[in-house]
Amino acid sequence: MDLVERALAGERLALARLLTQVENDTPAGRAALDRLFPRTGRAHLVGITGAPGTGKSSLANRLARAFRSLGDCSPARKVAVLAVDPSSPFTGGALLGDRLRMKDISGDPGVFIRSMASRGAVGGVARATAALASVLDAAGYDPIFIETVGAGQSEVEIVRLAHSVVVVDAPGLGDDIQAIKAGILEIADILVVNKADLPGAENTLRALENMLELAYPAGSAERRRPPLLRATATTGEGVEEIVRAILEHRAYLKETGGWQRREQDRLRREFEALLSAALVARWREQAGSRAVHELFARIASREVSPSQAAEEAVKKTMGCE
Amino acid sequence: MDLVERALAGERLALARLLTQVENDTPAGRAALDRLFPRTGRAHLVGITGAPGTGKSSLANRLARAFRSLGDCSPARKVAVLAVDPSSPFTGGALLGDRLRMKDISGDPGVFIRSMASRGAVGGVARATAALASVLDAAGYDPIFIETVGAGQSEVEIVRLAHSVVVVDAPGLGDDIQAIKAGILEIADILVVNKADLPGAENTLRALENMLELAYPAGSAERRRPPLLRATATTGEGVEEIVRAILEHRAYLKETGGWQRREQDRLRREFEALLSAALVARWREQAGSRAVHELFARIASREVSPSQAAEEAVKKTMGCE
Repeated sequence: MDLVERALAGERLALARLLTQVENDTPAGRAALDRLFPRTGRAHLVGITGAPGTGKSSLANRLARAFRSLGDCSPARKVAVLAVDPSSPFTGGALLGDRLRMKDISGDPGVFIRSMASRGAVGGVARATAALASVLDAAGYDPIFIETVGAGQSEVEIVRLAHSVVVVDAPGLGDDIQAIKAGILEIADILVVNKADLPGAENTLRALENMLELAYPAGSAERRRPPLLRATATTGEGVEEIVRAILEHRAYLKETGGWQRREQDRLRREFEALLSAALVARWREQAGSRAVHELFARIASREVSPSQAAEEAVKKTMGCE
Repeated sequence: MDLVERALAGERLALARLLTQVENDTPAGRAALDRLFPRTGRAHLVGITGAPGTGKSSLANRLARAFRSLGDCSPARKVAVLAVDPSSPFTGGALLGDRLRMKDISGDPGVFIRSMASRGAVGGVARATAALASVLDAAGYDPIFIETVGAGQSEVEIVRLAHSVVVVDAPGLGDDIQAIKAGILEIADILVVNKADLPGAENTLRALENMLELAYPAGSAERRRPPLLRATATTGEGVEEIVRAILEHRAYLKETGGWQRREQDRLRREFEALLSAALVARWREQAGSRAVHELFARIASREVSPSQAAEEAVKKTMGCE
């Protein structure tokens, strides 16, 4: 059996190695992705995002455990967590001695945790996250939680991979954090106020309730209004309701065609990213390194603008109809 | 005079309208960019980044004022601030009633402040930031501060536009924020501990000093070690030293060829982004909407993978040599 077959057969070490190949975008990794592609499209991808300090990781941990013991299928579901959050204890945070929280699930063979470097080549993280999720999907993990901090645009892109997005909030965050928060509310399918045992939780709930009133006025049923839930990840309180909301959102997407639509959007974006990279590479090859060098020199000397140069290059590359 | 000429002549309202056209990527905006391109390349682009709560905006405000009264040129320098930070009082933060801090400079006709929506189309923010900076550059603003929160990857990309990057830290931030921070230290040209009057400032300075020791071991002079400065933006203490460090870094870049190198890298990235968008648009046109639709259907049904489909499309588009 080769690496792909062993990963599909459930060998964790093989899966880990395969994920590394795919993350590094090696030729073997790319070939594996093509082979695995027909097996993908089954897993429920669930984004978990929110500002730093909201307790997303603890919640992801709890949710993974809850889905493991759900008892709605036999054999039991296998669950994966992909952490692309630099403040997550699964990734960067772990370096800072915050490994404790993930202890609960790390011993469970039915849970696969993978953390990713959140910095790298342009567009690299979103691409790599999509690719890793595909491998885990093909390997039978479902749901796959994608944990990311809800700040930058690339994080929002990563979350857009997901079928369902859980946005986590918490009381007692600073004003700066509040401002970051506003931007991610609009992508929420499920809203959770975590740390609901802290003072101020009622205020946070009320503020979110008001925001929802504004965004989804009573009577307008055009868009689905995300449920607003409360939880305390440290004790597990409220986790069951989130699990139910995730399953309900899955059913809702399947019924309304939203599942298929999100899937198709995602695949189209993936295709276009690959196509544009390939077309630029082909242009570079056809033009030859001297011509490319000369063109860059003309841009640097301000003789042509980047957009004029791009126009010129397109004409040369594709002007043979 | 048309809009571009009026903006170049110093009309603020014309400049504001031109920036809107460019930000929205309208045909007029694109044409203006091409016209302005030969006038660009003079301004010092200074990125100001850091975790939420570090007081970046106050510092940007102070630095803009300090450069205005520098007295090293006649007529006085015109200074611009581009805020792409969702937690900045210049942008989203302003909605939350945090407008106070920018009051100081908003009445000065030699300071131009522009805030940007930090969410939008894929790759949109970095592209738009580069374009707006070009317009301000052509209009004679120098330096141009680009304020962004140091979390997501797209923020890092935006900061990469800059010739000099000031990373702002502050004492008393939570652990989650600390973790976010680590990732942006490596892009710092100048490190500032702001809120240096708060308890804990010494600890923050020491921690950064230790990180610098590790990253730039004594004796290895391969890379320039960023200066570590302390400031209190609310009182203005230490701002003069940051101004000096920014001017020194500019001189350093000019001497070592780093200025030109960063400039060329930036122009090359801009060109490649434009080229790939144009090539994909051309492919779509050549292939025709029916063929594109059919290809997407084959991907959706898992008949071909996105990468196989991209390969096929490249062959069809450019296979006419």
